[in-house]
Amino acid sequence: MTDLEDLPLRADLRGQHPYGAPQLDVPVRLNTNENSSPPPAAVAAAIVAAVATEVAEVNRYPDRDAVALREELTAYLAKQTGEPLTVDQLWAANGSNEILQQLLQAFGGPGLKALGYTPSYSMHQRIAEATCTPWVDGRRASDFTLDPISAVEQVKVVRPNLVFLCSPNNPTGTAIDLDTIRAVADATPAMVVVDEAYGEFARPGTKSAVTLLPEYPRLVVTRTMSKAFAFAGGRLGYLAASPAVVQALQLVRLPYHLSALTQAAARAALRHATELQAGVDSIRGERDRLVSELTARGWEVVPSDANFVLFGRFADAPALWQRLLGAGVLIRDVGMPGWLRVTAGTPAECSAFLGAFDQVATDADRMA
Amino acid sequence: MTDLEDLPLRADLRGQHPYGAPQLDVPVRLNTNENSSPPPAAVAAAIVAAVATEVAEVNRYPDRDAVALREELTAYLAKQTGEPLTVDQLWAANGSNEILQQLLQAFGGPGLKALGYTPSYSMHQRIAEATCTPWVDGRRASDFTLDPISAVEQVKVVRPNLVFLCSPNNPTGTAIDLDTIRAVADATPAMVVVDEAYGEFARPGTKSAVTLLPEYPRLVVTRTMSKAFAFAGGRLGYLAASPAVVQALQLVRLPYHLSALTQAAARAALRHATELQAGVDSIRGERDRLVSELTARGWEVVPSDANFVLFGRFADAPALWQRLLGAGVLIRDVGMPGWLRVTAGTPAECSAFLGAFDQVATDADRMA
Repeated sequence: MTDLEDLPLRADLRGQHPYGAPQLDVPVRLNTNENSSPPPAAVAAAIVAAVATEVAEVNRYPDRDAVALREELTAYLAKQTGEPLTVDQLWAANGSNEILQQLLQAFGGPGLKALGYTPSYSMHQRIAEATCTPWVDGRRASDFTLDPISAVEQVKVVRPNLVFLCSPNNPTGTAIDLDTIRAVADATPAMVVVDEAYGEFARPGTKSAVTLLPEYPRLVVTRTMSKAFAFAGGRLGYLAASPAVVQALQLVRLPYHLSALTQAAARAALRHATELQAGVDSIRGERDRLVSELTARGWEVVPSDANFVLFGRFADAPALWQRLLGAGVLIRDVGMPGWLRVTAGTPAECSAFLGAFDQVATDADRMA
Repeated sequence: MTDLEDLPLRADLRGQHPYGAPQLDVPVRLNTNENSSPPPAAVAAAIVAAVATEVAEVNRYPDRDAVALREELTAYLAKQTGEPLTVDQLWAANGSNEILQQLLQAFGGPGLKALGYTPSYSMHQRIAEATCTPWVDGRRASDFTLDPISAVEQVKVVRPNLVFLCSPNNPTGTAIDLDTIRAVADATPAMVVVDEAYGEFARPGTKSAVTLLPEYPRLVVTRTMSKAFAFAGGRLGYLAASPAVVQALQLVRLPYHLSALTQAAARAALRHATELQAGVDSIRGERDRLVSELTARGWEVVPSDANFVLFGRFADAPALWQRLLGAGVLIRDVGMPGWLRVTAGTPAECSAFLGAFDQVATDADRMA
């Protein structure tokens, strides 16, 4: 039997483990920031009907450039952000992870550098490394905020080729001011990637970085249908940027990367954006409830613009995570000592979480 | 307006053009080796029903490891090749292009080298370069065959970290002897990747490299559902290898890379493999007809184990390609001076191609 160690694996991958949260079948799953609401039956039927049309000619390759899908994404994102957009500014792939990979393949690589302000979405670093782009861990303030002065200072020291800003930031939850994004884009000749996977959940008044696109041709805003659209199983990520960025990605994208079924299903979902996003307000409400309930219990809670809440600080977060799992509630240990992350699910799920938490967490769990 | 040249694009991508054949809407499309037969209505309905079940919970992420799909692939490939296989030897992705990319990410990279014997599937080189793995163009004999002595000699000179063998070879059409694959695998500590995208169309007696897996832990055989399964629009590629290879790919695969819809649709297609592949014998027959008809007209034709035929030699292949397009028949100019490639479609499509060819090709087209 050949072991992984016996294969000529790339040196920097040796000893690594596959990325991913445990996929466990428990009553309440609040660990991967999924949207707890399945699509309404009528929307599901519309998606299935759209797929059925494509299955009838599934012997043919899909549209390599996914133009019809990108047109739907353009209309949606323009409406959602209030910023006029054209189809040549939009690009789509199998989840925003593939978008990020394409960006790193086009603008990263050996001898170049990517900077992100951590803790943040850990796939930024993993995908950078998988594309042979050295990663530099930037810093945030102790409350996980990022101000323009610190952000710019780090850019000037590191001199990266790509900068990743996650807003709202995962796993901490808070959105970044546009002033910070402007300051970074002004201070560097690098590509500036703003990951807005959770953009639709932001608190009122939070503006999308999409509104900065006319000013910054090296700015890229990535998005996903996994969260607000409740479409995680459909795997559809996208970006908005200058048309030149889209042209760059077409040099590295795998031909026919988006299946005909994916394109059709996503188009149908976009045509029913209103119904699919009907639950977003409820999720925001539950998110705010989690923040206030946990705060009321005397825990530290990071302000959240996302569909999840980071809270602590715990003497032993992994042990508390395990006790919650024992009580039937799966949340996320994101590897930040002292902190845990919980997704804002349905009212019943959030109540179940709070009930379980009250049952298993005691003052002994508080970090000294 | 910002141009691509104004962006900090990776240096080696500058001046490149996106990969891909023209996607033109003409009566007879024989350019991308698609299977001309759409799925039978009952099979299409089964695929749609499987997708419908998944759409009902599309708010949840898919199985990251696609275990149920890999079980179906294991059963199919074991039956197709006669080689016992276990689920931990199979891996799946969005088309075999993504499989190839994952292989290059895991086993390639800067400072390493990939060798392929060209002309062959040009994506091997493109994906190698996109993953920063320098590519070395190996040679074939003037009749496009590859014998063990030449293959081994090149491996010894180049000392690659990955070797790509395409069997049946695209765009030339002929399968490689297992003796050649053995000789290469014996001569190198590299990963040896055999691309069998067209494996199901091989002439009787051609054995799959899958049968060599028990002997060679660094051997990888890639396959696709695009061709024999008539599932190009579904984008499902896979590989068989030692379990350690699958573990290696799990370090670089994007989490949740395969959508729930893709997994469900592909599983349904695999359950109906017999019906979907009912047309394979007809395609082989049409392929053999194209070979004999073109040979009878005095053209050079490369022996084919695939669903396409490479033929020539033409004084001006692009001009002839254009005249065929004018006659409503789209075939492929693969960039080999003097040669064109035609896909074996339905009997009617192949007759239409031969009729158009007889109409537009004259003795003046023969290479001097």
